Amino acid sequence: MSKGKVLLVLYKGGEHAKQESKLLGSLENELGIRKFVEDNGYELVSTDDKDPEGSSQVDKELADAEIIITTPFFPAYITRERIAKAPKLKMCITAGVGSDHIDLNAANERKISVIEVTGSNVQSVAEHVIMTMLVLVRNFTAAHQQAIDGSWDIAGIAKDSYDMEGKVFSTIGAGRIGYRVLERLIAFNPKKLLYYDYQELPKDAVDRLKQVSKIFNDNDLEIERVVSLEEMVAASDVVTVNCPLHEKSKGLVNKQLLSHFKDGAWLVNTARGAICVAEDVAEAVENGKLRGYGGDVWYPQPAPKDHPWRSFRNKYGAGNAMTPHVSGTSLDAQARYAAGVKNILESYYTGKHDYRPQDVIVINGDYATKAYGERKK
Amino acid sequence: MSKGKVLLVLYKGGEHAKQESKLLGSLENELGIRKFVEDNGYELVSTDDKDPEGSSQVDKELADAEIIITTPFFPAYITRERIAKAPKLKMCITAGVGSDHIDLNAANERKISVIEVTGSNVQSVAEHVIMTMLVLVRNFTAAHQQAIDGSWDIAGIAKDSYDMEGKVFSTIGAGRIGYRVLERLIAFNPKKLLYYDYQELPKDAVDRLKQVSKIFNDNDLEIERVVSLEEMVAASDVVTVNCPLHEKSKGLVNKQLLSHFKDGAWLVNTARGAICVAEDVAEAVENGKLRGYGGDVWYPQPAPKDHPWRSFRNKYGAGNAMTPHVSGTSLDAQARYAAGVKNILESYYTGKHDYRPQDVIVINGDYATKAYGERKK
Repeated sequence: MSKGKVLLVLYKGGEHAKQESKLLGSLENELGIRKFVEDNGYELVSTDDKDPEGSSQVDKELADAEIIITTPFFPAYITRERIAKAPKLKMCITAGVGSDHIDLNAANERKISVIEVTGSNVQSVAEHVIMTMLVLVRNFTAAHQQAIDGSWDIAGIAKDSYDMEGKVFSTIGAGRIGYRVLERLIAFNPKKLLYYDYQELPKDAVDRLKQVSKIFNDNDLEIERVVSLEEMVAASDVVTVNCPLHEKSKGLVNKQLLSHFKDGAWLVNTARGAICVAEDVAEAVENGKLRGYGGDVWYPQPAPKDHPWRSFRNKYGAGNAMTPHVSGTSLDAQARYAAGVKNILESYYTGKHDYRPQDVIVINGDYATKAYGERKK
Repeated sequence: MSKGKVLLVLYKGGEHAKQESKLLGSLENELGIRKFVEDNGYELVSTDDKDPEGSSQVDKELADAEIIITTPFFPAYITRERIAKAPKLKMCITAGVGSDHIDLNAANERKISVIEVTGSNVQSVAEHVIMTMLVLVRNFTAAHQQAIDGSWDIAGIAKDSYDMEGKVFSTIGAGRIGYRVLERLIAFNPKKLLYYDYQELPKDAVDRLKQVSKIFNDNDLEIERVVSLEEMVAASDVVTVNCPLHEKSKGLVNKQLLSHFKDGAWLVNTARGAICVAEDVAEAVENGKLRGYGGDVWYPQPAPKDHPWRSFRNKYGAGNAMTPHVSGTSLDAQARYAAGVKNILESYYTGKHDYRPQDVIVINGDYATKAYGERKK
């Protein structure tokens, strides 16, 4: 008899998993942890059957699972109701970064630990942010469409194509990902960098950005923490969302905030879909308030076929740079978060519980990080 | 009677020019120089009728033109034959960067000056290079297609999606654009940067890259000039072409060189289409030698509907990141090269001929820059 059950929820790889053995984050490849789990006397059950809540395999298996491992890319929403029906549950591991698919208050009440693999894909997501900015600002999708469909109408692309250089960029959230985005922007010679966060960036982090701007652009970069979100977006050409989803950030980018944006600004969100009000953002692109929107997070996920972010376009038929939620699940990232999950399990199995402090979201009935804890105010 | 004729060849803007007055590079908006040219007593003739050679309006007007202004995006090829039929021609101005559409040897023989607006869009092109790398490495086009068409198959994207971080990048050509690409790569924390060029990067330019890598990545970046092109591509995950087109670089990336590439490397070319052998590159993606190819230069331009770079795909149906030639014609770049053309004309009209040295390609019957002069060896 096993010591306990580990439930692993991953997206199905199918033929893709057969084609690429490095696709560790797929159901078939199980993060490469089956042997490790079984060698430790635990049972491993893997599934992609997570919906609808109440009747899926996830619900069935949760009844006696001790650990559940999920991802942000294909989240099994671990609601208060599901937690109530999982009496043996002791730990939720997020294979990736961002544990908002788990009801953290409910987890705290039951003293269930929530641990993620911080840093396993922050660089991947920061890259996706820069890519999405470039795709929008330079009008890539309209250009690529012409290349593919046999046409050649440069003016039709150029009329809505700009440079990153000389623009004002701002980030809502300047944590591990937001800061990396700022780093990657410096060489593009921005006019100014702004950020909105509950805490100030460390002085040495700001100094690094300024030093590099001096070296590459021979200027004294203005980088400023802005207290008023409305004022920040009003001053920005490109706004990017890089904060966690919590009670205060849910629906933060809505019609009201969008009305403060510069006309024709670009918005990039790789944080969480629910931080933006889907219909409001889609409408802002359609009516020209935004020149474009892009990112790879949606609510819910998988996004339904009629999600408004699939169909919005600007007046020129472009301005949509959406992708399904893949920014953090590159093959390089999969190798990192698979290794991270194994380390967390090892720490659990040995009874040491010596998790990396930055990985711990909630433990022993309390929030370990202020980024999520903010919601308790 | 006018002092002389200025012939301006630009792409047609049509409805796009009406929609966007900043579209200075279009036929309708004439770089905003009509009044300036006429105030100086010259006649301005604008056209987009450049083909076929021999019977186009360009050929007709060249018979008595003193100056011709062209762009790399929609090039009127100024061949030896055309120069022979333009007895009054004294100057060719390139509104942009890259004057390979002009027969420079023939221009030299006639002591026709060739002047371009160096630096007017180097940042635009460098941005396009980084964008194209990200699009290829992260598998953007396949992901975006799913977002648009209503599907959600993360594994199908992730199986061919990687991070820029930790990769080896190399550039064929480390001039104004190539160096800017290297600058923009540092914050992505590359494993190594390699370059192939006829001259070594200045020590302070290399030092800047190393300093920034130390600041952002806390490592001692390896950046190396490689003498053997074959060895360089064999060591690279991502290769980018940033050299001018001349007799020695034409067809440089061919089947033979491609055979030395790492299996599954990515190739980006925003320099000139003819530096790559179109069929060989397309075949390399199709047969898996390259994971993908992207860029925005073609030969000829406009590219025919059946150009092989419109249709190639890798084994997963992706790996094509082509755009028509737009990288250097963003609205920001148009403002810069329109201003640059005006400055060149002013210098000509005043008889001072005090062009910015970096703008001069050939003058008084000789090459002013070694990058092009190399061909004479």
